[in-house]
Amino acid sequence: MPKKTEPVPAPPKDLREACVVAARDAIAEHGIENLSLRDVARRLGVSHQAPYKHYPSRDHLLAEVMRRCFENFAAHLDARKRFESPRDDLHSLGLQYLRYAQEHPLEYRLMFGTPWPASAEHPDLIRDAAHAFDILREVLRRVHGGTAGKRDQVDLDALFIWSSMHGLAGVMQSDCLGHLDVRAPVLARATEHIMEMVGRGLGSGG
Amino acid sequence: MPKKTEPVPAPPKDLREACVVAARDAIAEHGIENLSLRDVARRLGVSHQAPYKHYPSRDHLLAEVMRRCFENFAAHLDARKRFESPRDDLHSLGLQYLRYAQEHPLEYRLMFGTPWPASAEHPDLIRDAAHAFDILREVLRRVHGGTAGKRDQVDLDALFIWSSMHGLAGVMQSDCLGHLDVRAPVLARATEHIMEMVGRGLGSGG
Repeated sequence: MPKKTEPVPAPPKDLREACVVAARDAIAEHGIENLSLRDVARRLGVSHQAPYKHYPSRDHLLAEVMRRCFENFAAHLDARKRFESPRDDLHSLGLQYLRYAQEHPLEYRLMFGTPWPASAEHPDLIRDAAHAFDILREVLRRVHGGTAGKRDQVDLDALFIWSSMHGLAGVMQSDCLGHLDVRAPVLARATEHIMEMVGRGLGSGG
Repeated sequence: MPKKTEPVPAPPKDLREACVVAARDAIAEHGIENLSLRDVARRLGVSHQAPYKHYPSRDHLLAEVMRRCFENFAAHLDARKRFESPRDDLHSLGLQYLRYAQEHPLEYRLMFGTPWPASAEHPDLIRDAAHAFDILREVLRRVHGGTAGKRDQVDLDALFIWSSMHGLAGVMQSDCLGHLDVRAPVLARATEHIMEMVGRGLGSGG
């Protein structure tokens, strides 16, 4: 029988999962730059070598943490309220995007605000990131009446919509905004106003 | 005579400055959450107590680092190419904003992307942040023909322009963008396209 103080290694499948959860917690506490497989092993009470069975490097584990962010993010976007009108669907998608950014600030920052893992290839991460972007492209294809010739237009507008929502989420959450002398009724109307301005920009840009 | 290994404290005025530089370096290396007066003292080779002569707390030093970011940022915006036409001036201001975000990513993140110091009042920081925002307000007053009744409109549009540029800077610098299947000619046109869309949104929103 093992002594009580000896950590009992979790079965492989659970350890793979547990590493992802522990890595996310480690990032939340100490920042992405301090993530290490050694720290993850320590948190789980397993040997320093154990995580390597599932993740060849710290970057592979980080890529898996990020991939799941994109997977959940895409599922969140897909769960938006749907509308027949492509314009209304785009608006609904924008609001759903903003909701994710507000409710999952850490995951949001991992996807769009911090460096990606550099030292290895991560095809699964790239695939799931592209899938999330494709949700926006798909709605814009409907807006533009998506023929092949519209591909560049769809991508340009996708970058416009994405950067608009990214900026709106960032500004509304920034500590800076609360210290500027902006009246409360203006702050209360800001999101709606900006969504409207974005819609107008898109309206005459097709 | 002091022994060679004993650190010689810098004169007060230099130490005040040196703390700001050392704090900026410490943040660049270990992240804002790991900034401490103790680490700053260690970097400067002074006693742990020395920085307290100038900064009552870590938050006061952080506030001074951030205040200087806003001061430099505002000077950078003021140094933009000027135009008679308010519209052209706004466009020039946007490009100058994007240039700052690209050339000073750490300073940019400190102003708009990380938590502000919480445990103390920092009137100088707030004043200099407001001054930078006022540059944008001033140009928008010229766009709208700034009477007092336009104040809310000016602020709503200032938030629209700010969030648009903030989002554009963030998306174009994100590692994510490089991994999406977006064609190079689209990427090359993206900034110009988005600036145009923002201008159109503003055009019909006055």
